Amino acid sequence: MTENDIQVAVVGSIGIDTVETPKDKRVDILGGSSSFAAVAAAWFANVGLVGVVGTDFTDQYMDIYRNAGVDLAGLQVKEGQTFRWSGVYENNMNKRRTLSTELNVFQSFMPELPEAYKTAPFLFLGNISPDLQLHVLNQMNGSVFSLVDTMDLWINTARKDLDEVVKRVDMLTLNDAEARQYTGEDNIIKAAKMMLERGPAHVLIKKGEHGSILFSKEDTFLMSAFPIESLVDPTGAGDTFAGALIGALARSGSVSHETLREAIMYGNIIASFVVEDFSLNRLITLDMDQIEERASLFCDMICI
Amino acid sequence: MTENDIQVAVVGSIGIDTVETPKDKRVDILGGSSSFAAVAAAWFANVGLVGVVGTDFTDQYMDIYRNAGVDLAGLQVKEGQTFRWSGVYENNMNKRRTLSTELNVFQSFMPELPEAYKTAPFLFLGNISPDLQLHVLNQMNGSVFSLVDTMDLWINTARKDLDEVVKRVDMLTLNDAEARQYTGEDNIIKAAKMMLERGPAHVLIKKGEHGSILFSKEDTFLMSAFPIESLVDPTGAGDTFAGALIGALARSGSVSHETLREAIMYGNIIASFVVEDFSLNRLITLDMDQIEERASLFCDMICI
Repeated sequence: MTENDIQVAVVGSIGIDTVETPKDKRVDILGGSSSFAAVAAAWFANVGLVGVVGTDFTDQYMDIYRNAGVDLAGLQVKEGQTFRWSGVYENNMNKRRTLSTELNVFQSFMPELPEAYKTAPFLFLGNISPDLQLHVLNQMNGSVFSLVDTMDLWINTARKDLDEVVKRVDMLTLNDAEARQYTGEDNIIKAAKMMLERGPAHVLIKKGEHGSILFSKEDTFLMSAFPIESLVDPTGAGDTFAGALIGALARSGSVSHETLREAIMYGNIIASFVVEDFSLNRLITLDMDQIEERASLFCDMICI
Repeated sequence: MTENDIQVAVVGSIGIDTVETPKDKRVDILGGSSSFAAVAAAWFANVGLVGVVGTDFTDQYMDIYRNAGVDLAGLQVKEGQTFRWSGVYENNMNKRRTLSTELNVFQSFMPELPEAYKTAPFLFLGNISPDLQLHVLNQMNGSVFSLVDTMDLWINTARKDLDEVVKRVDMLTLNDAEARQYTGEDNIIKAAKMMLERGPAHVLIKKGEHGSILFSKEDTFLMSAFPIESLVDPTGAGDTFAGALIGALARSGSVSHETLREAIMYGNIIASFVVEDFSLNRLITLDMDQIEERASLFCDMICI
């Protein structure tokens, strides 16, 4: 591997979002699962992004990826508008309501990996339809560690493909409600064990402000979330968490209980930054000292 | 201090409960905040219990305290019936509905501490009315570390007395919803800081299955809950947590960031046992090896 080889391929949605919170509003800001995940991962590793945008996707957005050092060989630019989403956070940010969704060029998205991405040792598959996720998995050559996100929509509408994805991935991530929904089991530990039996070596349950739990075949890791005093926009927190996790794992170069725990901790830390501002604003003003300082603070908060 | 000196005074309600869960039901079982707290604390220290029961409180109940080694000099037996509560857990245990409450002898409860309790170095004030909590605080001689629980009812109906209690206690514990309600602040970190400014050196926010957060003036400790696969009856989990915490703190003999963190860990562990059976059944069949084994397992689950 040379210095510029892609270590992490990130595949998912790219969107132009309009986000309203109880205190503020931003129009036409960069969003989408792969935007958050790629920029977060790029803090730790060489990242290649696979996604689709329209001709309305100006340099203002492209520059965010470029400045983060994200490789864009896998970015497709199609005639038409970029995927657009608008939503509003209510009830002090703990409830999100979608106002509008326009799929636009994302409707016919077919993820195609550049050759250099096919041998990446780490892969993050954001929350796109399971058949597209399978299409990506089929393009990977050699041994890859794959982290896959999913959502209630696919559990309801594409379970067969989702089951096939779950069989093939190394780590499945979903939130606690989705884990219950996918397995029909209310106890989260039993639900995680059921999912582990279906294929993945690791199941990562996200619980938002309450942290996350990593279930592996012979290990359980409980992680509280870094406490956030100034929550501005929760959009993309889960994707940022997953992206930083896979990036940190790629930086460590191996997958062990220890490297996984450290990577999840970095996922938590980077996600704690991203929600302090809209879109990716906070991620692109970070520096590694701030990351390490908060990581150290966090470690002090969880030791007995 | 001699070997038999009371190290922890526990004051609160004692009840005879009828509890129904989606799978099972138990009639006339021992309950009440001080029952759970005292028996939990007694795993670690010499505990004296202050409470009131009626003449229906048979040896079947008394023996649970006695076998746990709880001192009963502070237990008042009054003509009449013991406090009775019945409730049902719905929605897979995450929703509790009260079916009936009969205050009985608890209605005129006036906690009076035996002389030997007044010099106890640690005190747990369970969730009784703030004026009774003040009455207990006024009886304590010398330097005591007090842990005080409260609830939404007192926040709504007895705020002035509650404010006075909060001013005087060392550690206030309440759940996240109550913290928001008491302060009017939705961000839990800001809410905790507001409460710290009102007097206590420590505020412990309980989040049920999501763990707890200890906020001290210069320290924050995030604790995930031990993951429970076989939840049978959540009644008393919070009081067990608080009781084991104060007991473990008393055993350590000092209050520092380190001893507090360890004590909270033991609170978490003992609470994880109590919910595995109805009433105090699981607590009285435990042994210290099981406690230490789970504590060790838990520590492995939270280390990075």
